[in-house]
Amino acid sequence: MKAETKGHHVVVIGAGFGGLQLISSLRGAGVKITLIDQRNHHLFQPLLYQVATTSLATSEIAWPVRHLLRARKDVTTLLATATGIDSHAKEVQLADGGTVPYDTLVIATGARHAYFGHDEWEPFAPGLKTIEDATAIRRRILLAFERAERERDADKRCALLTFVVIGGGPTGVELAGTIAELARDTLKGEFRNIDPAKARIVLVEATDRVLANFRPELSAYAGRALEKLGVELKFGHPVTDVDAEGVMIDGAKLPASTVLWAAGVAASPAAEWLGTAADRAGRVIVEPDLTAPGEPNVFVIGDTAHVSRGEGALVPGVAPAAKQQGRYVAGVIKARLKGATASKPFVYKNQGDLATIGKRAAVVDFGWMKLKGWPAWWLWGIAHIYFLIGLRYRLAVALSWLWIYASGQRSARLITQGGERE
Amino acid sequence: MKAETKGHHVVVIGAGFGGLQLISSLRGAGVKITLIDQRNHHLFQPLLYQVATTSLATSEIAWPVRHLLRARKDVTTLLATATGIDSHAKEVQLADGGTVPYDTLVIATGARHAYFGHDEWEPFAPGLKTIEDATAIRRRILLAFERAERERDADKRCALLTFVVIGGGPTGVELAGTIAELARDTLKGEFRNIDPAKARIVLVEATDRVLANFRPELSAYAGRALEKLGVELKFGHPVTDVDAEGVMIDGAKLPASTVLWAAGVAASPAAEWLGTAADRAGRVIVEPDLTAPGEPNVFVIGDTAHVSRGEGALVPGVAPAAKQQGRYVAGVIKARLKGATASKPFVYKNQGDLATIGKRAAVVDFGWMKLKGWPAWWLWGIAHIYFLIGLRYRLAVALSWLWIYASGQRSARLITQGGERE
Repeated sequence: MKAETKGHHVVVIGAGFGGLQLISSLRGAGVKITLIDQRNHHLFQPLLYQVATTSLATSEIAWPVRHLLRARKDVTTLLATATGIDSHAKEVQLADGGTVPYDTLVIATGARHAYFGHDEWEPFAPGLKTIEDATAIRRRILLAFERAERERDADKRCALLTFVVIGGGPTGVELAGTIAELARDTLKGEFRNIDPAKARIVLVEATDRVLANFRPELSAYAGRALEKLGVELKFGHPVTDVDAEGVMIDGAKLPASTVLWAAGVAASPAAEWLGTAADRAGRVIVEPDLTAPGEPNVFVIGDTAHVSRGEGALVPGVAPAAKQQGRYVAGVIKARLKGATASKPFVYKNQGDLATIGKRAAVVDFGWMKLKGWPAWWLWGIAHIYFLIGLRYRLAVALSWLWIYASGQRSARLITQGGERE
Repeated sequence: MKAETKGHHVVVIGAGFGGLQLISSLRGAGVKITLIDQRNHHLFQPLLYQVATTSLATSEIAWPVRHLLRARKDVTTLLATATGIDSHAKEVQLADGGTVPYDTLVIATGARHAYFGHDEWEPFAPGLKTIEDATAIRRRILLAFERAERERDADKRCALLTFVVIGGGPTGVELAGTIAELARDTLKGEFRNIDPAKARIVLVEATDRVLANFRPELSAYAGRALEKLGVELKFGHPVTDVDAEGVMIDGAKLPASTVLWAAGVAASPAAEWLGTAADRAGRVIVEPDLTAPGEPNVFVIGDTAHVSRGEGALVPGVAPAAKQQGRYVAGVIKARLKGATASKPFVYKNQGDLATIGKRAAVVDFGWMKLKGWPAWWLWGIAHIYFLIGLRYRLAVALSWLWIYASGQRSARLITQGGERE
């Protein structure tokens, strides 16, 4: 990297919603910005489950960061992996041995799925955070049907046609609903020895309802909508074991060859880098101005930050929260450059919760308004198209969705990445 | 697989152009058909280079075979890998230990790229035959620019920005032309330390012209069009070595960190399975009716077959030839079922050669007509959209191409499949 001596240097780690919003809000601030990400793409994570369930192509929701920022001559994009922070020397350490000095650092490195002490479950119950996770899950789902078609043993065939989704939050609900549609709709009539419509899709949730963040009546509606799609709901019992044969719930074994994990996340190791206090999920417990404790020049935002909303509640790990934090930190940096020494604390404004159940139902909770059914679905769809960046991707995703809506057919049914040879 | 005792059973290995055309032409023939492929998708190989060069998404040119054949209740699709043939027992052996009995067998297993005695070059000069090949090449090309951006050593940066394509046939020409456009057009203004437009793209061809199958004036035009895009042409010397540092041509080392192989293919191991005579490229030297020698119930078509056109010339390994052979073999099977004992030999009809050089030039040689420049490009584009299967994919590819044509921007610039961490 070219050495830069003049001007305030803001280094951002992570090109997710928080990092990109921060950079966008720093436009014209007169600072030099370096963005570090280990991926070359910004991933539109809210739609990742649609790649996992064959509705969207990988490149429709993963866009080259360098391209998004091409007009910003004040921004240098580095494809590199951060491995540590030396906050005395004020530099970020990279995996290749290089370092990047900063004046202000913003850590927006997101989260990975986590198994809370049961990492041995991971090979059997993959989670969904990256494009590779999504194509691996897609592969697993499609191969289960392929193997069932060729399996002569009735019990094994039954296990191959059982799909268990662990976790009843938005991702779990969206995965289960779409797998149900894939089985009943998209794959209809394509097999000769099995009927894919007979597949069991089981959603396991340890509490007593899906979408626990929503109002109870919307949770109840979402549960009914899932059941209408043919999803079995298992409430009130956590999963106690996962292996190659299936899952253990409430002391009973549920044989299933496809198990998906949508139950928990853990933050990236920013807290370890900083040597600072973290919560159970590894998030840095930040100050009210989103700085790390004792590190006034280091901000932590998005899924990596533990931000209290008062009364024991936390700011949720969703895209709008990360964006609000990015915008807020940009404001703090700009104010500091003008000489401000203190900032008003970050306040999260809940803009509403959205979740979709298959292709005709959704729930929307704006606080002042709640919506369900097909009007919610259209609102959900239009909102997500709006949030995609660039006309090109909006057109492509709109085409994919309209096609699915009209025909039930999904266009990204690709089994890739080796191993399809038995 | 369910046992089937009644009816003539045609087994087809390979869901490429030849195999699918055969099945299409057997519609209503009253036979039972089993299609075996180790992939779940039919790949539209003529556009594979566009995935490798970020123009198209993987799922735009790879379509689930099972879906294409859903309406054909006489066809059973098996995702399985054939590993051998027992022509006495008349059965196909599968990798999982299973067998599939046949009355008539059609081998349409295609080809892989080949290094003709230099397999040690493969890790340094990947070829392009599968979706995974294409995403690996895409990854390599995009990473070269990323690494160059961070490289401080001028020589190493120069090698990172040198792209060598070995082989001046249609694939080599199309790859070189598109990489040149990617560098000069698509990536313009996105880097801070390098100018991607300064990348060297070198096309190496051992003979004295590109597109040797075309008429010399079209080859000359294609060469000029490539040079206009900034591609260096190196004629008359074969590559004598390839390693991690680059290629050796005419006794001189050309340092290059990205080397792509478009110089040769070898057939799948059908000849070994049959224990029959093969040519240098491993193709089964078939009888005039496309049966394997001494195996009247086994047909070999497409890139796996060595089919003479007289005067020492061979039927080329292109999609139209494979389709014609599929149609021909379907005719032979139908005639035999009606009692015919002999068939007129297969005759290849050359429907014309097409190749494209970047986004505004192409050459078309129909024999009775030749075309070059932008009219050829539009003809090439419309012909390929026409040959795609299904309105959904036609719309998606047309959108992608019109977008590239209008803006120079390519939408599938995704680095995936691990390892982007340095």
